[in-house]
Amino acid sequence: MKVLHTADWHIGKKLHGYDLLPDQAYILDQIKKIAKEEAVDAIVIAGDLYDRSVPSEESVRLLNQTIADWNLHEGFPLLAISGNHDSATRLATGAPWFNQANFHLHTRLAEAFTPIEMADTQFYLLPYFEPVDARIYFEDPELRTIQQAMPKVIQKIEESFDPAKSHVLVSHFFVAGSSKTDSETKIEVGGLDGINGTLLEAFDYVALGHLHGKDALKLANARYSGSPLKYSLSEKDQTKGVWIVETETGEFTFREVTPLHEIQELQTSFASLLDPTFYSAIDRENYLSILLEDRAVIPNLMNQLRQVYPRIIQVERANGFETAVEARLKTENIKEKSPIALTEDFFMDVSQNELTTLQKQWIEEGLHTILKEGGASECFRRK
Amino acid sequence: MKVLHTADWHIGKKLHGYDLLPDQAYILDQIKKIAKEEAVDAIVIAGDLYDRSVPSEESVRLLNQTIADWNLHEGFPLLAISGNHDSATRLATGAPWFNQANFHLHTRLAEAFTPIEMADTQFYLLPYFEPVDARIYFEDPELRTIQQAMPKVIQKIEESFDPAKSHVLVSHFFVAGSSKTDSETKIEVGGLDGINGTLLEAFDYVALGHLHGKDALKLANARYSGSPLKYSLSEKDQTKGVWIVETETGEFTFREVTPLHEIQELQTSFASLLDPTFYSAIDRENYLSILLEDRAVIPNLMNQLRQVYPRIIQVERANGFETAVEARLKTENIKEKSPIALTEDFFMDVSQNELTTLQKQWIEEGLHTILKEGGASECFRRK
Repeated sequence: MKVLHTADWHIGKKLHGYDLLPDQAYILDQIKKIAKEEAVDAIVIAGDLYDRSVPSEESVRLLNQTIADWNLHEGFPLLAISGNHDSATRLATGAPWFNQANFHLHTRLAEAFTPIEMADTQFYLLPYFEPVDARIYFEDPELRTIQQAMPKVIQKIEESFDPAKSHVLVSHFFVAGSSKTDSETKIEVGGLDGINGTLLEAFDYVALGHLHGKDALKLANARYSGSPLKYSLSEKDQTKGVWIVETETGEFTFREVTPLHEIQELQTSFASLLDPTFYSAIDRENYLSILLEDRAVIPNLMNQLRQVYPRIIQVERANGFETAVEARLKTENIKEKSPIALTEDFFMDVSQNELTTLQKQWIEEGLHTILKEGGASECFRRK
Repeated sequence: MKVLHTADWHIGKKLHGYDLLPDQAYILDQIKKIAKEEAVDAIVIAGDLYDRSVPSEESVRLLNQTIADWNLHEGFPLLAISGNHDSATRLATGAPWFNQANFHLHTRLAEAFTPIEMADTQFYLLPYFEPVDARIYFEDPELRTIQQAMPKVIQKIEESFDPAKSHVLVSHFFVAGSSKTDSETKIEVGGLDGINGTLLEAFDYVALGHLHGKDALKLANARYSGSPLKYSLSEKDQTKGVWIVETETGEFTFREVTPLHEIQELQTSFASLLDPTFYSAIDRENYLSILLEDRAVIPNLMNQLRQVYPRIIQVERANGFETAVEARLKTENIKEKSPIALTEDFFMDVSQNELTTLQKQWIEEGLHTILKEGGASECFRRK
């Protein structure tokens, strides 16, 4: 049978403070369209549906609507597990009623050992679990790490294999040798570095969640789907999408998705960033990481940039700030200047305009009053 | 048909800091037993299933288990609404799948107008709503209060009445003339005092939630079920339980429940509270409000009481503390006493024992050392 494999939705996640819910609703809609185009027989969601154990009401609304639409309205069977970001208990709400509609949501280790049988395939839904869950389930106080527990888990799963069928494992953990990005939470693995991939050899396909890059792991029979959106700057060059898997043959192909707003890096000067000929040529709605080529301090920088670019996630200097020597020279220069000259400089810095004759006159009168009252420091007495 | 009417479970509520989850699990089990004894055709839950919009994981677990047990295992049809303490959005998780199992959970005003038809009865499940919900639903910006909205709501409900059937309204609001306790949150009612009971006349029975006393309202065809547990000291004399309703005749009878731990008031002296002949005659596990007859300051009072009584919710003085004059006289007396005599008094106060000869000797030596070192105040030099 043909399944769509996705994971790591992280509904409710923010990117440098920006609410991603509209981006997430947009991308989930694209995934649904792919499922319909491909006419898949089921959709697999390999954990981290939510970004937090206590998601916001808006996040709950988006997941509830999405899942009800896919399963009840569109009629897709769903096979889902909880990830390390989900609260297994909260996510399980409603689960006992879902099965009737071919929506299988497993949140406890004990549920992993009963296969979901669909057409020619046995699906094993193994949610994220902690070593303590394995100790309790296997009544074995020696199981201190996931690495120690996993062989027992896989062995027990294999006991119920029907040799006439294909076998798909849906799970959420770190497989040794995979490559990470900045946006995944590291699972505690008892000092070891993930699960050995050879443990997974008995499955025709392993639909993994946890790592956000689709190429994080390249076993013949296992893939991370990756997150459907770029959830950190380190993911900016990743291709996002879902796997379409033929469970009989174990073949899989990738279908790309296109985000509502891309993550983009810009490197140029402050002046060109504010130049319409520059910014009319790019998508200003993107999430932008800006590398400024200027070296001087720019007053009111972020406010000015945000008037043109609504989604700035980072601003850094390509060449650093001016050196300490340069800055000191400027300071010495300041010491030579009269109060009225300094005020003119400051006005120019902030407003990009020269003082008018009338403005100059007001400032001179103001400075004169201060000096007369004797409240000003030595600095003001230079003229 | 025969229904059981309950409400205001407030799962997760604490009583003066004490976790009530074990009490709530215990009482919900009793309600299930009553439903089975009475062989009811459905169970009505009229809002405030949770105490907070974001319940704890333990609260979520208890509600999920209870509801799955009652509906899927015991086979009871359930008719439930969200109350003002529930987050409608969070509570709605799973609801689209529940209907198949005859579990109807309404959390939005719009859902109130489609009756749930069961046997001879039409049930209208009207969840708690805010005036803004009515403004949007009826597209009428003039609806500023629940009082203004409710006639339109009831009128619209009555439009779908099947005259051949009985009509039951399940709702969660404050009906004018009802009597409150301390543990309900007051609904904002735009300056008016609740809904007029005459609005409810068309229904054979109105199953209400919100107020915690079963006798808060006495209309011929409407009742609050009250909370199944006493959620404040002001509810200590209330009888808790559920209504068993015959929807054809509109007749209802009350079935009492017995809590795991009662709320109890004790009035006596500190000495008798710590006297085994006193406390062996009462249930020390109860939630206790203690009225102390003593007037003196009692050092370490709460710690001493808690060693005997694990669930003290309040300690007050029946006769107040000793007066300022009495206290001053004692202070003056203190000024006349030697350090060793003061120490003896203090030891007696705290331990209820006299100092032994050896203890007295140690104290005298200690005081002597202090005086020799010259660090003591004038007070210590009296002997």
